[in-house]
Amino acid sequence: MPVISAGLEDVVAATTALSEVDGERGELIIGGFPVGELAGRATFEETTWLLWHGALPSRRELEGFCTELAAARALPESTLALLRECANRRLDAMDALRIAAGTMSLESGQPADIVARLPTIIATYSRLRKGTEPLAPRQDLGHAANFLYMLNGHVPDEERVRGLETYLNTVIDHGLNASTFTARVIVSTGSDLVSAVVGAIGALKGPLHGGAPGPALNMVFEIGDASRAESVLRAKIERGEKLMGFGHRVYKVRDPRADVLAAAAERMFTRAGDMSLYRLALVVESTAVRLLEEYKPGRRLQTNVEFYTALLLHA
Amino acid sequence: MPVISAGLEDVVAATTALSEVDGERGELIIGGFPVGELAGRATFEETTWLLWHGALPSRRELEGFCTELAAARALPESTLALLRECANRRLDAMDALRIAAGTMSLESGQPADIVARLPTIIATYSRLRKGTEPLAPRQDLGHAANFLYMLNGHVPDEERVRGLETYLNTVIDHGLNASTFTARVIVSTGSDLVSAVVGAIGALKGPLHGGAPGPALNMVFEIGDASRAESVLRAKIERGEKLMGFGHRVYKVRDPRADVLAAAAERMFTRAGDMSLYRLALVVESTAVRLLEEYKPGRRLQTNVEFYTALLLHA
Repeated sequence: MPVISAGLEDVVAATTALSEVDGERGELIIGGFPVGELAGRATFEETTWLLWHGALPSRRELEGFCTELAAARALPESTLALLRECANRRLDAMDALRIAAGTMSLESGQPADIVARLPTIIATYSRLRKGTEPLAPRQDLGHAANFLYMLNGHVPDEERVRGLETYLNTVIDHGLNASTFTARVIVSTGSDLVSAVVGAIGALKGPLHGGAPGPALNMVFEIGDASRAESVLRAKIERGEKLMGFGHRVYKVRDPRADVLAAAAERMFTRAGDMSLYRLALVVESTAVRLLEEYKPGRRLQTNVEFYTALLLHA
Repeated sequence: MPVISAGLEDVVAATTALSEVDGERGELIIGGFPVGELAGRATFEETTWLLWHGALPSRRELEGFCTELAAARALPESTLALLRECANRRLDAMDALRIAAGTMSLESGQPADIVARLPTIIATYSRLRKGTEPLAPRQDLGHAANFLYMLNGHVPDEERVRGLETYLNTVIDHGLNASTFTARVIVSTGSDLVSAVVGAIGALKGPLHGGAPGPALNMVFEIGDASRAESVLRAKIERGEKLMGFGHRVYKVRDPRADVLAAAAERMFTRAGDMSLYRLALVVESTAVRLLEEYKPGRRLQTNVEFYTALLLHA
């Protein structure tokens, strides 16, 4: 019998120039910059340009790119109709995103159009599911600001935009995660970019991939009070449950993205004037890491990107 | 630098109970049966049941399964509307299939529904692209017969149904090809079956995967006459072009599926009373294999599944 490389563990399947992950040292380099330097400063448009062109844009390049993206945000009528039907059937948001993204082949399917329209799809679907009418995108706002405007119906302040951009920059590339891997397998046959993105969204939906932050946050809510952290987490581990937000296939130390996202989340909670959830999360984190080392010594299960993603997006 | 396993060559990524590929001996076992025994005899419904349950169905199980599939063929109105829009924009058929298949999440998304509806999508789109109205599926026909009915507007004879079923059975599973691999990566995250099928369709579209039969047939048409086979093929090889329909990542002898499909194609052409294209294809095949050995000695580039797929589907 041949040896099966389950999950392709330790197999190097491809190269990438976009990011570099050092799981032992807990370092992530995105487009040549440490994630901690880049994520909290660059706009989403700057980081996207960086990954597409290998260097940060000049002021003029950036203006052109922002204009191009802003002009491509609106969805065609048929995609809107499809999202309405998805909402009527109360479809899972990731399924609705996948279905609507698939229709981008009806238009150009060019990279900038794909990047520009995905937030419109998500905000439109969020509003339809809440029973409110979708809002047309605004061309005078940046990528992240316009998304928050389409989602909530008012222009967000700088801090909130910064928080979202920090998140988007932090997760913009991470080597061969399952969704990127799916996209690369699809284009490796000579297929097209929309097919690749649609496949990637399908992979991202899974609870073992992009679906993890929700359960991680639910766990913090379930604990509810710092005094209950140890007993609830101990019971979970003893029942054999996975603690969502802890452990990673590559990182054996604290996920460098957790630091960036935790700092951004802290700013958001500070600004809102209520630090209780953030403080609770810190206690949950330290308790979970301690108990995981106690129950699974040597496994090095550390806080991963999902834990503080959940907190930041909630904030 | 670590060693990169490009294309995951020689990496065993997963196990499967569905089929067994022996690339050195040129053997393919599907659901426990050699492809040559199974493909030309079983109905598509029998082979599907075999792969889903690990054994051929009893008469009663088969009747139940056929009834279930037949009842699930119709497409919802929204999917039909989307296919009309795809046709208006003259979308590639594989993109239209991917888009329409994605909407299966709006209904149950159960395995039998997916299998039942894909042919309806394909036949509907084929008719819309030709400017004819789609036909409603018939519940009194089998899977392959109903597909040909929906495609052409008349109930096909037994031979034609047998030819299509032979093709469908031959390609029903082949281990970790790119589309199956895509589907398995997607479900490995805990995502759903429709997402997996949609991703697989995206991978199948590529000219290095499911897109190969068309170019293989075009090459035969381009040659046109047996006397031109050697000069045209020699020129192609000397220009560095790939000969579509020859060479395979796993099979180093003649693809066992080529035999099965060639025999089925021969029956179809015999029945049509015009063997000229089939005879030309035989000359093209033998010339191509001989020239490939001459120009690329030791590479063992043999006839693959695409070459006779193209001929059989054309017939």
